[in-house]
Amino acid sequence: MAVSYEQITVLGAGSWGTALAYHLVGDGCKVKLWARRMEQVEEINTYRENKRYLPGVFLPDSIQVTADLKQALAGAQCVVFSVPSHTFRAVLRDALPLINTGALIVNTAKGIEENSMLRLSEVFADEAGPSGAEHYAVLSGPSHAEEVAQKMPTAVVVASVSSRTAVLAQDLFMQKNLRVYTNPDIIGVELGGALKNVIALGTGIVDGLTGSDNSKAALMTRGLAEITRLGLTMQANPLTFAGLAGLGDLIVTCTSRHSRNRRAGIEIGRGKTLQQALDEVNMVVEGVRTTRAAHGLAATWGIEMPITEQMYQVLFYDLPPQAAVNNLMTRVKTREVEEVALTKIKWYAERDGAD
Amino acid sequence: MAVSYEQITVLGAGSWGTALAYHLVGDGCKVKLWARRMEQVEEINTYRENKRYLPGVFLPDSIQVTADLKQALAGAQCVVFSVPSHTFRAVLRDALPLINTGALIVNTAKGIEENSMLRLSEVFADEAGPSGAEHYAVLSGPSHAEEVAQKMPTAVVVASVSSRTAVLAQDLFMQKNLRVYTNPDIIGVELGGALKNVIALGTGIVDGLTGSDNSKAALMTRGLAEITRLGLTMQANPLTFAGLAGLGDLIVTCTSRHSRNRRAGIEIGRGKTLQQALDEVNMVVEGVRTTRAAHGLAATWGIEMPITEQMYQVLFYDLPPQAAVNNLMTRVKTREVEEVALTKIKWYAERDGAD
Repeated sequence: MAVSYEQITVLGAGSWGTALAYHLVGDGCKVKLWARRMEQVEEINTYRENKRYLPGVFLPDSIQVTADLKQALAGAQCVVFSVPSHTFRAVLRDALPLINTGALIVNTAKGIEENSMLRLSEVFADEAGPSGAEHYAVLSGPSHAEEVAQKMPTAVVVASVSSRTAVLAQDLFMQKNLRVYTNPDIIGVELGGALKNVIALGTGIVDGLTGSDNSKAALMTRGLAEITRLGLTMQANPLTFAGLAGLGDLIVTCTSRHSRNRRAGIEIGRGKTLQQALDEVNMVVEGVRTTRAAHGLAATWGIEMPITEQMYQVLFYDLPPQAAVNNLMTRVKTREVEEVALTKIKWYAERDGAD
Repeated sequence: MAVSYEQITVLGAGSWGTALAYHLVGDGCKVKLWARRMEQVEEINTYRENKRYLPGVFLPDSIQVTADLKQALAGAQCVVFSVPSHTFRAVLRDALPLINTGALIVNTAKGIEENSMLRLSEVFADEAGPSGAEHYAVLSGPSHAEEVAQKMPTAVVVASVSSRTAVLAQDLFMQKNLRVYTNPDIIGVELGGALKNVIALGTGIVDGLTGSDNSKAALMTRGLAEITRLGLTMQANPLTFAGLAGLGDLIVTCTSRHSRNRRAGIEIGRGKTLQQALDEVNMVVEGVRTTRAAHGLAATWGIEMPITEQMYQVLFYDLPPQAAVNNLMTRVKTREVEEVALTKIKWYAERDGAD
């Protein structure tokens, strides 16, 4: 039975935050949308449109826009975080004292905190204390904001350590055009959403280098295989990476014209340096930061991640992309699925599987 | 240590058979390429080019082309089958008496036999007897023939019930531009390669209907999830479907301009009937046949495959594609990974995992 909310607050008025506010409003439910910059608030209030991040979508008056965090959060029964991952901790720290106890928290940011290498649910626990996790869910999956605003059929996943919270979030977001699955594996959902950007950057490089469909499919598949290998060691469910937050999001990010990670990769594949590529794209390219985090996680957990390693060398040590491809192609011959993976799956299945 | 072959025979001079003959020839190894039609043999011998199926690739004289099966197979230490899946049994029946005992057999055809619903390795066992399986391997993965002939970096997988045979096939095909992984799970590799065509057809339909990237990624992900669910019940390893023969091949087939399955789907999505779409494409569209086989397998094994079910209704009972999408989006809410999957994974890991 669905809980009905009288007021939901979305923090962050980028493409995704704005699209989710638009998705959630209606049926007696008010939505407050918090934007950091006052000019953005004024623009949306004047035109009822977020011209920069979600052009062409009329935002009804029942979406109230404000730059005042206290006003935004007053009375909210549910808070959706939709801020860039590197600002998550700062916004969370400001917001936490203003959030009602027991409010449902849904985070849509994807990333690994840079120096701490923490997943965002760990950052949340760090700030809110471990008991907060009961009300905390992550929403992820292949979801271009513009298409969700246009009511295109989309499927996403919500994960929480609490099955009740996962179902609450599922009920909240599920509509005819948005199908929501639950998954108890928050570790896998967070890792999949963050690490796929490394592979998207790599796929862009292959696109710029040769454009080969065979090479791109191989890179995506073996990229997901090494993310799965890391995930298994970090106690994620391997099947999560074959799901919406892993494979699904990887497909959208690697094949979309709009992906900044892919665009930056294409420039590097064509011979530009990282800095030149970033200047060209002129927006945050999450995959660069995430490559460093992934490289750190691989070292910490002692996991072989050959694609991540080559990406790291290309981005930060000027290895020519063609040399990276050659290094990957001439590695020692091996099995597709390592025996160790099966052992770890067995462990996972014994912990969380039925009987 | 790699075995060196003096003579390899490739049966079937389509795009893939010709590209593999070209890939394998050299270093004192002769390749015989068998084509069914005499005109094709004459054309290749005249121009040293397979103008229809692999234009632009010069075929050296060390590839001997013949329409005589007996001549083709005489002295072959390795036989590569590269014929359409629905002709596999007939060609196999003619070829078997002419193949040396102990020769390595590599099959590159992908499909399920229509009425028997047998995988092609089962068709092989049916004709050759179960002991033949020791020398039989399957090669699959994301591999456009033209790109392999152009030496683009490509990764594929070989599967066999015999690890020795798998490694022999790996050594045979592995080169700087073609990376070959082994996988003991022949069931998963065969199912992945065949059933991905159902999803490619469906992705084409979504492309014709709305072109939504979100919808396509959702369909591919949930499509692979239901193939994995069927595969688990048929005793495949779930991770195989996240590998090159599953995910990898799915990506190439669903995103390529050249995929006939996708092209036929686009026409259906735009409102054409199945027959009109097939007339338009005017080539064999494997996904149609495979949808019927997948539907039969789901019924036989009692597995819920909602996307396959809707595809079956669209193709054979004129369900409008938009209605099929609505049916999929409004199904009862559910978990992303079913508990039953974990139980079956545990079973698989116990059988084949380390310790």
